[in-house]
Amino acid sequence: MTTQDAERAAMDRALALALNGPRGLNPQVGAVILSPTGDVIAEGWHRGAGTNHAEVDALSQLPAGGARGATAVVTLEPCNHRGRTGPCSEALIAAGVSRVVYAVEDPNPAAGGGAERLAEAGVEVVAGVERAEGEELLASWLETTRLGRPRVTLKWAQSLDGRAAAADGTSQWITGPDARADVHRRRAVADAIVVGTGTVLADDPSLTARDESGALRGTQPRPVVIGRSEIPGEAAIHRHPKAPLFYADHDLGAVLADLRERGVQSVFVEGGPTLASAFLRAGLVDEVLAYIAPVLLGAGRLAITDIGVGTIGDAVRLDVASIQSLGDDLLMIATPRAESKATGYEAPGREGVR
Amino acid sequence: MTTQDAERAAMDRALALALNGPRGLNPQVGAVILSPTGDVIAEGWHRGAGTNHAEVDALSQLPAGGARGATAVVTLEPCNHRGRTGPCSEALIAAGVSRVVYAVEDPNPAAGGGAERLAEAGVEVVAGVERAEGEELLASWLETTRLGRPRVTLKWAQSLDGRAAAADGTSQWITGPDARADVHRRRAVADAIVVGTGTVLADDPSLTARDESGALRGTQPRPVVIGRSEIPGEAAIHRHPKAPLFYADHDLGAVLADLRERGVQSVFVEGGPTLASAFLRAGLVDEVLAYIAPVLLGAGRLAITDIGVGTIGDAVRLDVASIQSLGDDLLMIATPRAESKATGYEAPGREGVR
Ligand SMILES: NC(=O)c1ccc[n+]([C@@H]2O[C@H](COP(=O)([O-])OP(=O)(O)OC[C@H]3O[C@@H](n4cnc5c(N)ncnc54)[C@H](OP(=O)(O)O)[C@@H]3O)[C@@H](O)[C@H]2O)c1
Ligand SMILES: NC(=O)c1ccc[n+]([C@@H]2O[C@H](COP(=O)([O-])OP(=O)(O)OC[C@H]3O[C@@H](n4cnc5c(N)ncnc54)[C@H](OP(=O)(O)O)[C@@H]3O)[C@@H](O)[C@H]2O)c1
Repeated sequence: MTTQDAERAAMDRALALALNGPRGLNPQVGAVILSPTGDVIAEGWHRGAGTNHAEVDALSQLPAGGARGATAVVTLEPCNHRGRTGPCSEALIAAGVSRVVYAVEDPNPAAGGGAERLAEAGVEVVAGVERAEGEELLASWLETTRLGRPRVTLKWAQSLDGRAAAADGTSQWITGPDARADVHRRRAVADAIVVGTGTVLADDPSLTARDESGALRGTQPRPVVIGRSEIPGEAAIHRHPKAPLFYADHDLGAVLADLRERGVQSVFVEGGPTLASAFLRAGLVDEVLAYIAPVLLGAGRLAITDIGVGTIGDAVRLDVASIQSLGDDLLMIATPRAESKATGYEAPGREGVR
Repeated sequence: MTTQDAERAAMDRALALALNGPRGLNPQVGAVILSPTGDVIAEGWHRGAGTNHAEVDALSQLPAGGARGATAVVTLEPCNHRGRTGPCSEALIAAGVSRVVYAVEDPNPAAGGGAERLAEAGVEVVAGVERAEGEELLASWLETTRLGRPRVTLKWAQSLDGRAAAADGTSQWITGPDARADVHRRRAVADAIVVGTGTVLADDPSLTARDESGALRGTQPRPVVIGRSEIPGEAAIHRHPKAPLFYADHDLGAVLADLRERGVQSVFVEGGPTLASAFLRAGLVDEVLAYIAPVLLGAGRLAITDIGVGTIGDAVRLDVASIQSLGDDLLMIATPRAESKATGYEAPGREGVR
């Protein structure tokens, strides 16, 4: 086996090890230490905020001096900042590692610079080994880091003329079975599904992701309810396979920040109209999924209400990524233009989680 | 030239002659009389309600006995009813015509039966010569006859969330230049363009069909304004190349019936919201053109208001024929399902045309 082959195999192993760690504010990272002859002598991964980073976790498996002349294979560029743990670059240098191979650059400007520091200290550094696989592993964490918050997909169903329900409040089955099945598929790949208290009180939804037969899918989003109203103890949401989170709060940025710390990197907002409009008004929507039933109602609850637009020039413009047919219905997938989008999270002021 | 060739050539000529006549309640029809040796000996066309039908017009060019043994080539099956003129079948029999060739069957049950009557009298009858061309010539008349009224296309522009204007009333350019150019192309092929007084008073539109450079297109729809409000003498509509029609009336069936008598076989309803909703409520829409701008407004005038739907089961369901991109915008072309469509025109009660 060439050095290259050995390092690639070690990177595959490191990528697998990374998945042992939890999803959270910190990235999932794995590391493998190879002896100068290319044998695996230690493995490690990051077990979550406040614990050792993957490289340090691996080094800790070795006796003093055991890493001298070794190669560290890590899924993410070793960090260079002193957070709750020391900088990994220094730990690697101190351990006498002579070569570091990593897949993905650290996008965090505060943490970055590890590769440079290592090189300065005379360590050989190789970047981008299995970068695509590394980026895939970290995709939602990388995007969360870029956005400064979880990625938000906002879904709603409407008639062509923009109604979420008819005049008498009937809205069940505004869209057909194909559209509903599509929603369930997408729920299953989100970390959390978010609704307002209004929807829970009106519809008592289960907020589970189910398959065509009605059975629970293998992965389930965590149900999240935002709003101050009391939710009855017998609400269906309490029987969700994942314990629901309740935020007695209207500060959506604070809710997203808390969800992020809990490892939620993607949220699927299913409304209703009040919450959907609040997310749009706050500029906190990355992707819109509008399920459009080809029907006209002319009256009834509107799918989107006040989003803070007074004049046509201030409209929230969408870039349409695709339009697809789902039975009789249409699904428009679109992204709000940058000027109508907020990122990051400035003001903490977060209220307690119930 | 074979008999077939001569008759085909005569049919082409008859189709061209038909266009000399006006469009109106009656179909445009042309006729050519061929001598027994296949020479054209007379031509005729229908000049409008109350005048001779095309066959009779052609026969009237000949001296008494001049049509004996001749072949009559007519674009539409000779009629068999005594309306304001006698039945053409009898006129052809009386003139001694021995063969009748026509393109399209008469769809009017009251007028039909001409072919049968001719055959009974020993006249040789050939149907369907150049039928496709004949049907093309009569397409909009045939559809008007089937519907019992002009064909109605309803167009509106909306934001994705169903708004026709923003909260402050701004709506100009809700859709982009490609969508607007498409509207102008479609205006040009309609017989009439219809708006409510509200749109004239709010926007003072010219209601002309223009090309990309802003120049008038070769054909123009007749502008029609429906509603009781006074329209100022200086309104732009008065400078339309075709004199506008004003109906101080809310009875859309009556307006369509009057337009039909004036030869209008297709109308393009351009709103606003009140008139668009009234057409939908009356079930008088054959085709919907919804130009959808991928923007969200959250407030402002709605494109479709009361259409008489109270509960989801009564929604006006549309069959989507196509979705196309026009620049950033989408055009949905759809047809209201039969159950939500009215045809024919029962109650006259028509008010005067101003
Ligand atoms: N067409 C669709 O796609 C769709 C989807 C879901 C639901 N629905 C329908 O929508 C209806 C419920 O509508 P809804 O608008 O009342 O439900 P909602 O948006 O789910 O809940 C509204 C509540 O969310 C809370 N909230 C949290 N953050 C907020 C913020 N930043 N701004 C304002 N409110 C915030 C408030 O609750 P507190 O007052 O408790 O603080 C508010 O009353 C139901 O009939 C349901 O069937 C339709
Ligand atoms: N987004 C779009 O596609 C679009 C298209 C056109 C216009 N607009 C906008 O729409 C606004 C005007 O809206 P609008 O609704 O007032 O205009 P409208 O629909 O053009 O006119 C409404 C008027 O039509 C008359 N009318 C005729 N038949 C009627 C019937 N069966 N039922 C009820 N009314 C009938 C009534 O006039 P009387 O009271 O005089 O009898 C009524 O007030 C303008 O701001 C314009 O810019 C938008």
